[in-house]
Amino acid sequence: MQVHTQQTPQFETPPHLEKRNKLVIVCSKGSLDMAYPPLMLATTGAAMGMEVHLYFTFWGINMLRKKTVDSLKISPVGNPAMPMPNILGMIPGMTRLATRMMRKSMEKMKMPTIMDMIKTAHDTGVHFHACSPSMQMMNLTKDDLIPEVDDIIGATTYLDLASEDAITLFI
Amino acid sequence: MQVHTQQTPQFETPPHLEKRNKLVIVCSKGSLDMAYPPLMLATTGAAMGMEVHLYFTFWGINMLRKKTVDSLKISPVGNPAMPMPNILGMIPGMTRLATRMMRKSMEKMKMPTIMDMIKTAHDTGVHFHACSPSMQMMNLTKDDLIPEVDDIIGATTYLDLASEDAITLFI
Amino acid sequence: MQVHTQQTPQFETPPHLEKRNKLVIVCSKGSLDMAYPPLMLATTGAAMGMEVHLYFTFWGINMLRKKTVDSLKISPVGNPAMPMPNILGMIPGMTRLATRMMRKSMEKMKMPTIMDMIKTAHDTGVHFHACSPSMQMMNLTKDDLIPEVDDIIGATTYLDLASEDAITLFI
Repeated sequence: MQVHTQQTPQFETPPHLEKRNKLVIVCSKGSLDMAYPPLMLATTGAAMGMEVHLYFTFWGINMLRKKTVDSLKISPVGNPAMPMPNILGMIPGMTRLATRMMRKSMEKMKMPTIMDMIKTAHDTGVHFHACSPSMQMMNLTKDDLIPEVDDIIGATTYLDLASEDAITLFI
Repeated sequence: MQVHTQQTPQFETPPHLEKRNKLVIVCSKGSLDMAYPPLMLATTGAAMGMEVHLYFTFWGINMLRKKTVDSLKISPVGNPAMPMPNILGMIPGMTRLATRMMRKSMEKMKMPTIMDMIKTAHDTGVHFHACSPSMQMMNLTKDDLIPEVDDIIGATTYLDLASEDAITLFI
Repeated sequence: MQVHTQQTPQFETPPHLEKRNKLVIVCSKGSLDMAYPPLMLATTGAAMGMEVHLYFTFWGINMLRKKTVDSLKISPVGNPAMPMPNILGMIPGMTRLATRMMRKSMEKMKMPTIMDMIKTAHDTGVHFHACSPSMQMMNLTKDDLIPEVDDIIGATTYLDLASEDAITLFI
């Protein structure tokens, strides 16, 4: 493992460009494995002093629902990165097994649960926004959401946040 | 649900940094659920006066194919965010059922179809670009694509668009 | 296929804003189909003179593992963009078949393998970073990784790279 600094030209930040201090992430997945990355980046960004916004849309809304936030799953089926043939993934209980295996790895690393991470992120000032059309489509009201959610906003507000020179990601 | 404005320091946009007025999205998925987000963001962005580019690559090409644009599907299998065990998802017809359920939700919300959204986006000036290596890999020519497609471009042109201070997303 | 230049207002790059010359991609997927896009964009960006960083996290670590880099797969199950019913995808060997079909298409187009693309990218100065919490979670050490990996970094270093006015993508 070597660092090849010579092969890459160094690009200096032009004097008028300060570092970006804003992170705006769209969270569109409702699976356990894709719930961790936005929350890890969000808490890290907040700890670095960044202004952080998470915009939950489509399946991502499940990360904000009281009913689902503690039971996010990963599926062994259709995920070729998991070392398990599809036919095994079909056996009832396999999603539960894969999910439990991942939770165990997380616990062994002393990784907090998703709900714990949401609380920490919220406490450090990360903003939680639920997407209004997704709420409508899933027939949800704000009472279905955990109290850490700041507000329910549309795509216009999201794009407005993203346009303010933010680091933008769609997860 | 509370807005915690005090916990987050306010970052002022430095005077030399205007808001970004460009949105460049890579569309790489060919499923119904992941077809909506880029089109909703694109039409919203265009309505806000942004210059919007959608770059369709890999499975995303299916959103531009005459043959597939009206029959995009979602799968109940391997999608743990859907409330259905994998074994049920295996029963022939379940992908069709899950897709029909989503279409019904969309209709109830008076959401337009993907083809309608593409037309609206196109009419408001959103640019549709097909990725040339993906076209080759799928053995397609421009005659296989809907007329709303502006052109077939490579990764260089995409990166050039993205480098012009755009909001960038990979969906 | 028409180019509708008139419908889109032209946005000039303000004089103080030069083109962005940095590309920072998070690689979070471990499937063959989602391994190509970051590597294609990375090599293209490097050829254009950009400073390029790839940050491999979660399943994306499989792209850097000696043990898995040459055997990335795509799954016909739960991927509604593939023209195959879920029930067929369940037949043992179908993941292998779908993967072989994709590899054949790639070969016909004279597309290099993932390992070849990694070598090319590395030779042109693309930086390969492995995510440290992901390494821990998967119980891996640097000896498990291919020698093209530059270093093992955390989310803070990633965000620092991304904040330097980079084009950012999460794949």
